[in-house]
Amino acid sequence: ADVKKIAVIAGDGIGPEVVAEAEKILKRTEEVFGLSFETEHALFGGIAIDKKGTPLPEETLAVCQTADAVLLGAVGGPQWDNNPKELRPETGLLGIRKELGLFSNLRPAVVFDCLKDASTLKPEVLEGTDLIVVRELTGGIYFGEKFRRESPQGEEAVDTCAYNVTEVERIVRQSFEIAQKRRKKLASVDKANVLETSRLWREVVNRVAVDYPDVELEHVLVDNCAMQLLRRPSSFDVIVTENMFGDILSDEAAMLTGSIGMLSSASLGQGSFGLYEPVHGSAPDIAGQGLANPIATILSVALMFRLTFGYEKAADAIEKAVAEVLDAGHRTADIAVDKSQAISTTQMGDLIAAAI
Amino acid sequence: ADVKKIAVIAGDGIGPEVVAEAEKILKRTEEVFGLSFETEHALFGGIAIDKKGTPLPEETLAVCQTADAVLLGAVGGPQWDNNPKELRPETGLLGIRKELGLFSNLRPAVVFDCLKDASTLKPEVLEGTDLIVVRELTGGIYFGEKFRRESPQGEEAVDTCAYNVTEVERIVRQSFEIAQKRRKKLASVDKANVLETSRLWREVVNRVAVDYPDVELEHVLVDNCAMQLLRRPSSFDVIVTENMFGDILSDEAAMLTGSIGMLSSASLGQGSFGLYEPVHGSAPDIAGQGLANPIATILSVALMFRLTFGYEKAADAIEKAVAEVLDAGHRTADIAVDKSQAISTTQMGDLIAAAI
Ligand SMILES: CC(C)[C@H](C(=O)O)[C@@H](O)C(=O)O
Ligand SMILES: CC(C)[C@H](C(=O)O)[C@@H](O)C(=O)O
Repeated sequence: ADVKKIAVIAGDGIGPEVVAEAEKILKRTEEVFGLSFETEHALFGGIAIDKKGTPLPEETLAVCQTADAVLLGAVGGPQWDNNPKELRPETGLLGIRKELGLFSNLRPAVVFDCLKDASTLKPEVLEGTDLIVVRELTGGIYFGEKFRRESPQGEEAVDTCAYNVTEVERIVRQSFEIAQKRRKKLASVDKANVLETSRLWREVVNRVAVDYPDVELEHVLVDNCAMQLLRRPSSFDVIVTENMFGDILSDEAAMLTGSIGMLSSASLGQGSFGLYEPVHGSAPDIAGQGLANPIATILSVALMFRLTFGYEKAADAIEKAVAEVLDAGHRTADIAVDKSQAISTTQMGDLIAAAI
Repeated sequence: ADVKKIAVIAGDGIGPEVVAEAEKILKRTEEVFGLSFETEHALFGGIAIDKKGTPLPEETLAVCQTADAVLLGAVGGPQWDNNPKELRPETGLLGIRKELGLFSNLRPAVVFDCLKDASTLKPEVLEGTDLIVVRELTGGIYFGEKFRRESPQGEEAVDTCAYNVTEVERIVRQSFEIAQKRRKKLASVDKANVLETSRLWREVVNRVAVDYPDVELEHVLVDNCAMQLLRRPSSFDVIVTENMFGDILSDEAAMLTGSIGMLSSASLGQGSFGLYEPVHGSAPDIAGQGLANPIATILSVALMFRLTFGYEKAADAIEKAVAEVLDAGHRTADIAVDKSQAISTTQMGDLIAAAI
């Protein structure tokens, strides 16, 4: 078969543990579906700072650039939090997004049946919630010029937020296309009553919308969206927004599902290349103890199969296996009601692999 | 008695209706507490655009500048939404904040007992929630340079976000002082892992914190705050943040209380001058029908009494009257379980006035 190359970045904290289970799943799908993967491990984040003196070593970038997809665990931890900017894990994250041209971050926020009680929202409000936030990932205030200068009122810091038509159009088109394959509703979120970048954003959305007459479009102001996500989460289908707003709203959306430990995400560029990672962080407090839940990372593999490789059947099989294992009552500590019955990271990985 | 001058801006939509009830309360407190107010009405927002060709006429600004406080109803409506920038109600809002030097927006998010079921959060999560968001109101990306330019990738829009030490320090000190009078906890929200303005913000917070050793300080990243507000709302006391983040988080916080129709806010500058308004909008869909709930505006008067005039007793009396009327079961349509039993805007105002 056609060998797919996957760059595997374990990262920090629980990253290595959850990624190891995802690799088990890769192996299992090779056996069951006759797929073939070549994995190459690379250093990234805190561990790369410690071993190579930079969060994103050249070799790591090269491994990713020659791969068909990237699987990422998690990066970061308190020991790097007070480092200078160029020696912080986040700087590596921003760098890899930019260098690989990953302009679009897809964050599905779905409710897992077995976790719906974990949400702080009332069940009747949450009912039917199944949305996806499409966040622009390589533009806006994250990547604009930043500097300090003297002012009559003391030192001043400046960040610049810029968006051009091309940057907006590509993510907006992608979002319309995603909406077409779902419930055909798109909410474009901006702050057009205040920001010039938002006014440009809205102009582009309105122009592009003409090509997708089957998709129902609404413009929502970002402050209102933060409210509506709480009030009527199930009414959203696809939400598209710029980088900073997307950072905030995608976390809000993930949290309200109650299933944040189980959510996966995809960062895409032009073509089929993508980087896949769980939404949760590196959880340094539980690292190395076999307590981490590998499901979000395993589901990131399913997302990779679907979006990068077009392996629909294998993707379905992974998702079905996860559902089966959960239905059978198996839980890692984070999602267990009775913690004494919790299984370990590797046990969860083994069970899911066996269920495929 | 010492006559206090209040600039009254009814505004658009339900603004005139709710402000009329708040004025009844002013009158009533004159009688009961021997206070003395001189009110002067001024045009602002949509109605000012229609009558004067600008959302913030010079006369209106002059009325506010010679007043001790401003009472504002609400502004905006669909008929002005597609106007050019200088003819939009929001432009008036930004203008009045800047011209009056209102650098701090206080938004208490509290749960009204009779409305706790209106929240989409589970009651046990909401229990004990009583927080205040202090939003910087005259700086950041709202007021930075904005422009368009040509780029190789098509037209480009730019917004600039800037903060200097003075701007940050004054609002941070105010927030520490507010926290000292409450539960002595301050959460400073920023995005210091990405933004230069946030790094400056955090430096200033840490420096100022030394003067308030009795206040427990935590730094929270904005994306994490959007999540924690949902997960543990009752753990927050005072949250201080910059303009754009505050816009988003204060709306999220207000919505999760379930009491958004009842919340009031204060915008303060140097000294005791302040602008007071309900958190809710102009609700054009129900304007002119006597359906609006005047409580948020009436409670804005209580906030004005407390923060600008130091009329603690009268403020307490207003809040007690509101509670009494609600306890007696009176409801406007927006908060009534049985809509057929709902009372009108003026009936609610009369009942509260009578209860003082
Ligand atoms: C770590 C941080 C720079 C990053 C971001 O803000 O993009 C994170 O919050 C995320 O959402 O991936
Ligand atoms: C109308 C708009 C400009 C305004 C803001 O963003 O400040 C509003 O959302 C608010 O919070 O008062």
